[in-house]
Amino acid sequence: MAHPDDAELSSGGTVLTLIEQGYEVRYVVCSTGDKGTKNPAITPFQLAATREQEQRDAAAVLGVHHITFLRHPDGELDGIRGLRDEIAILIRHSRPSIIITHDPWRPYQVHPDHRAVGFATADAVVYARDHLFMPVLQELDLAPHTPLEVYFTFPQVPDHVVDISAVLEKKLDAIAQHRSQLAQMPGWREKIKLMAAKQAEGKPFQYAESFKRLVLAYQ
Amino acid sequence: MAHPDDAELSSGGTVLTLIEQGYEVRYVVCSTGDKGTKNPAITPFQLAATREQEQRDAAAVLGVHHITFLRHPDGELDGIRGLRDEIAILIRHSRPSIIITHDPWRPYQVHPDHRAVGFATADAVVYARDHLFMPVLQELDLAPHTPLEVYFTFPQVPDHVVDISAVLEKKLDAIAQHRSQLAQMPGWREKIKLMAAKQAEGKPFQYAESFKRLVLAYQ
Amino acid sequence: MAHPDDAELSSGGTVLTLIEQGYEVRYVVCSTGDKGTKNPAITPFQLAATREQEQRDAAAVLGVHHITFLRHPDGELDGIRGLRDEIAILIRHSRPSIIITHDPWRPYQVHPDHRAVGFATADAVVYARDHLFMPVLQELDLAPHTPLEVYFTFPQVPDHVVDISAVLEKKLDAIAQHRSQLAQMPGWREKIKLMAAKQAEGKPFQYAESFKRLVLAYQ
Amino acid sequence: MAHPDDAELSSGGTVLTLIEQGYEVRYVVCSTGDKGTKNPAITPFQLAATREQEQRDAAAVLGVHHITFLRHPDGELDGIRGLRDEIAILIRHSRPSIIITHDPWRPYQVHPDHRAVGFATADAVVYARDHLFMPVLQELDLAPHTPLEVYFTFPQVPDHVVDISAVLEKKLDAIAQHRSQLAQMPGWREKIKLMAAKQAEGKPFQYAESFKRLVLAYQ
Amino acid sequence: MAHPDDAELSSGGTVLTLIEQGYEVRYVVCSTGDKGTKNPAITPFQLAATREQEQRDAAAVLGVHHITFLRHPDGELDGIRGLRDEIAILIRHSRPSIIITHDPWRPYQVHPDHRAVGFATADAVVYARDHLFMPVLQELDLAPHTPLEVYFTFPQVPDHVVDISAVLEKKLDAIAQHRSQLAQMPGWREKIKLMAAKQAEGKPFQYAESFKRLVLAYQ
Amino acid sequence: MAHPDDAELSSGGTVLTLIEQGYEVRYVVCSTGDKGTKNPAITPFQLAATREQEQRDAAAVLGVHHITFLRHPDGELDGIRGLRDEIAILIRHSRPSIIITHDPWRPYQVHPDHRAVGFATADAVVYARDHLFMPVLQELDLAPHTPLEVYFTFPQVPDHVVDISAVLEKKLDAIAQHRSQLAQMPGWREKIKLMAAKQAEGKPFQYAESFKRLVLAYQ
Repeated sequence: MAHPDDAELSSGGTVLTLIEQGYEVRYVVCSTGDKGTKNPAITPFQLAATREQEQRDAAAVLGVHHITFLRHPDGELDGIRGLRDEIAILIRHSRPSIIITHDPWRPYQVHPDHRAVGFATADAVVYARDHLFMPVLQELDLAPHTPLEVYFTFPQVPDHVVDISAVLEKKLDAIAQHRSQLAQMPGWREKIKLMAAKQAEGKPFQYAESFKRLVLAYQ
Repeated sequence: MAHPDDAELSSGGTVLTLIEQGYEVRYVVCSTGDKGTKNPAITPFQLAATREQEQRDAAAVLGVHHITFLRHPDGELDGIRGLRDEIAILIRHSRPSIIITHDPWRPYQVHPDHRAVGFATADAVVYARDHLFMPVLQELDLAPHTPLEVYFTFPQVPDHVVDISAVLEKKLDAIAQHRSQLAQMPGWREKIKLMAAKQAEGKPFQYAESFKRLVLAYQ
Repeated sequence: MAHPDDAELSSGGTVLTLIEQGYEVRYVVCSTGDKGTKNPAITPFQLAATREQEQRDAAAVLGVHHITFLRHPDGELDGIRGLRDEIAILIRHSRPSIIITHDPWRPYQVHPDHRAVGFATADAVVYARDHLFMPVLQELDLAPHTPLEVYFTFPQVPDHVVDISAVLEKKLDAIAQHRSQLAQMPGWREKIKLMAAKQAEGKPFQYAESFKRLVLAYQ
Repeated sequence: MAHPDDAELSSGGTVLTLIEQGYEVRYVVCSTGDKGTKNPAITPFQLAATREQEQRDAAAVLGVHHITFLRHPDGELDGIRGLRDEIAILIRHSRPSIIITHDPWRPYQVHPDHRAVGFATADAVVYARDHLFMPVLQELDLAPHTPLEVYFTFPQVPDHVVDISAVLEKKLDAIAQHRSQLAQMPGWREKIKLMAAKQAEGKPFQYAESFKRLVLAYQ
Repeated sequence: MAHPDDAELSSGGTVLTLIEQGYEVRYVVCSTGDKGTKNPAITPFQLAATREQEQRDAAAVLGVHHITFLRHPDGELDGIRGLRDEIAILIRHSRPSIIITHDPWRPYQVHPDHRAVGFATADAVVYARDHLFMPVLQELDLAPHTPLEVYFTFPQVPDHVVDISAVLEKKLDAIAQHRSQLAQMPGWREKIKLMAAKQAEGKPFQYAESFKRLVLAYQ
Repeated sequence: MAHPDDAELSSGGTVLTLIEQGYEVRYVVCSTGDKGTKNPAITPFQLAATREQEQRDAAAVLGVHHITFLRHPDGELDGIRGLRDEIAILIRHSRPSIIITHDPWRPYQVHPDHRAVGFATADAVVYARDHLFMPVLQELDLAPHTPLEVYFTFPQVPDHVVDISAVLEKKLDAIAQHRSQLAQMPGWREKIKLMAAKQAEGKPFQYAESFKRLVLAYQ
């Protein structure tokens, strides 16, 4: 995910569900989010430190097992030399079954970081898959790995809708840890409920997170 | 906009309407358009000078208040170091309510400049919005600024259709100033009318320009 | 096309049909495909040499007249300095009526090379078209050229469906030359038939290849 | 300068001398220096905040009038989109007579940031000098400006040696503010004295800072 | 060379000498020099057109046989995608015995274009030399070519000094064609004579141009 | 080193001496050297495979303990995303005391790969040294590492001259393994002897390899 809070906002309920099913969940947070404030009194360093702690707190609410902070600057992810390689290394190291990331093809998503992370993750899936990419990784005994599925968050046309009705409150509790961001977003609890209700439209449950699911076979 | 003439072709009628409503309208033309000719006798310098004058003439027909020419080379905008920063500076300086730009997500748009300007403008909206981006701008007392809306021109699925029936002739007069381009495009007047009629399909008016409108709240 | 085998898989039947109609068909293969194996005993050099030979064999089955191998490394095409220029040079040199390439706008296509080649080709069409691009080419007497049409393969919404029922077996024979790839893809013959049948859905023929067709007029 | 502490280490005495002569001195610190520690207990955010404070303290000892922190990540300055533009903006804004920066041509300087800042500053001098660079700056009424001289620090062959004997102790006091760095550098006071003595070799004074001075005429 | 006037200033006398010896001389001017003015009334397009004409006039004075204008923007050559390739194409096309270019290793040369052209030319020598570089060029029947020598202008330590005493006046006449530049440089004639005298120091002739000469064998 | 054969040519004797002293020596070969031939009958893939084998044979003659082939394309190393990171990973993994690499500051070295590898290695030394660079490496338990010394080969002004008189013949035997290259270089044995003699000038021994040695303390 690009920033602290993107994971909980887009897929906190799905994360909870996966953990209940016995999955080990690991976060990768690419940017510090160090420019995400309207408060002129705060420095980017204080904000970055605050947001890492908030991200740790939110992950703790969900029971996430591990967080890797790549600590790139906010708003610059499309210019980061080697973001694709970093994610590929982590895929080979952690060997996930499922990867959840931003949908970089979603139109009218203005934030460049979301596009950058989505594309870097898609690319990294290719790099992690075939052993001839990145020969350095063979020195480190990092064998190739292909996840079974990639979930893209907030897609234009979802094809995988996860029922989060039972865990919505816990998701909201996790989001609530991102205090520095919510201060700028009054009424957030109701807005997120609405969004979750909208994602469940036409389904036999009340609240959902929806994804485009890519099954990786013969890509 | 990427080139001289893109503004009038895509949104000249909307510009007229906004000016009538009392808006101050400022153009930002990113490229000189200095390769847009089939005439082997003209140099890129003559063409660039001609097209700037044509752009000034067209803007004068519409009553546009200001033009900034960034004068980057035609066809190279996706490689321009700092286009995103330039647009962010102009947003903080001019503080627009509405930004109109190319839709970079529109499929099958082959010109790389249109994609480049659309993405750079989207990115610039983020950069202009948060004060911790580009600390140099604080030295210059350029405070953060968020426009209310971004209109993306020629989108795949429009959601904002502007009635330009009353101003279509004036729009055509503005376009007519781009003499160097129209010489390559016989029957242009009829073609543009047809396009405007098509954009009004299903609406209770005859001619339109259509946009994808992005309202900037909690982006 | 990005890799050896992309041409046959996406448009082998269309190539056959065009050749039967008297077209001269030239391939441009951008990458060696030198990382496309799960076999730890093979080096990228052996794989690249093997895949070039397979590509020659497949093209021979179809009767393709010429192949240019650009020989860039697999998985790195989005970082290749000058891929756009190379393709523009080839367009001016070969002067095609029809260009067939990857659809870079197709969502959920994770391979970065397919996006890179699609965009580079779209860009190259602009560069090849106007004589003021790339002044070096005037020294070489490579005059501007605009193809009549660009076909984008595997598009999200096709608008040009080619009946390949009569040539499907020959297409499969061509694909069969890519032995190094098919070893990793059991049951490929049936899968490709199914895909071809699906692309013909709603059409009065059995097997098809479908494209987004861009007619280049007033682009 | 690239990092907090580079200014004092390379030219603290010269800064003091210039201030005594009545110059207004402004610092531009490009990177946060957020990776400059061997202490595993400190985060990059704490380090960055600490080093900004240390830089403020050191500048206060010298009497420096203004500091601009560009806050780019440590070790990445050669990949920063627009560093050259930022420095050019600051040159046009502050209109310095003398610029002091790293010597990017100095061989065997392994740190990429020092090379990056030196080159970006050299480039920015060109950009600030001619009004047709960066047309956006004309909108902001930032007129062209050429400094009289550029001093490159730690050059291979100095041609401008500044007597800092009278101010050496104050320079050391300023350096002493960079507590986070000095902890890693025992005996630093003696080492810097030695270096200053060596730079004065062959001169009729005891301690010096030496530079390559570039007088900007007909560049 | 980077800009119109760089050729005459650095090596106009050598060009004259080579032409007298029967060499065919071809110029490659990479940038338009469109920002090289202090005159606020002139546009970059007028300046570019003027400088091309001045360059043609100056070359005519010397008897230069051919000029290729690459027409890249002034001050941006280090960001030009494919400058290296363009020069390599021209080397293979024109097959020169001697190449004269900027010395990119010369310290304290602040203009980024001079460094960029010097490095791009050095790189292009490698690219033009070996047939496996740039496979597209084989399609165009542009065979590999290695020049015998590369002369780098204004080097730190020259090893090749050309006597231009007999042709100095004609060199000055050629330089005099660059009227737009000389207006900014009063007393230029005397200054250039002085520079030429200095380059001849220690030699048995009065005026010289000096170079670092690289003989290309086993590079 | 950039290409197969660079290690033996520049420092084969030093490698032998280090191995005799008990050092474990590991090679890192960045490029395949797949364009280094004048033979039109050979493909880049055959050449790359041949040169890897030649490199293995040459290393075996010297007794080198390990080779990592990064397998980047010849002539493109300055455009490789992440070369710096790859070398930093290998430094942290292998934990060398001494690093030998190209001198990127050496003037008039036209090959871009030699400059690229020299700079990437210098940068990598900084990246490997401080633990806050590349947080992904902490996940892999790759602790920071600083070598004691870096040797830059073929420097302009050497300060470390290694007596290779006793091992010169073995060095020549190692070089002799690079058969594909030597075919293009008749009389190589005498030329290399001459070069080794020249590097020993002023020393009390006959043959030498000379370096610029950088001792890494307080860098």
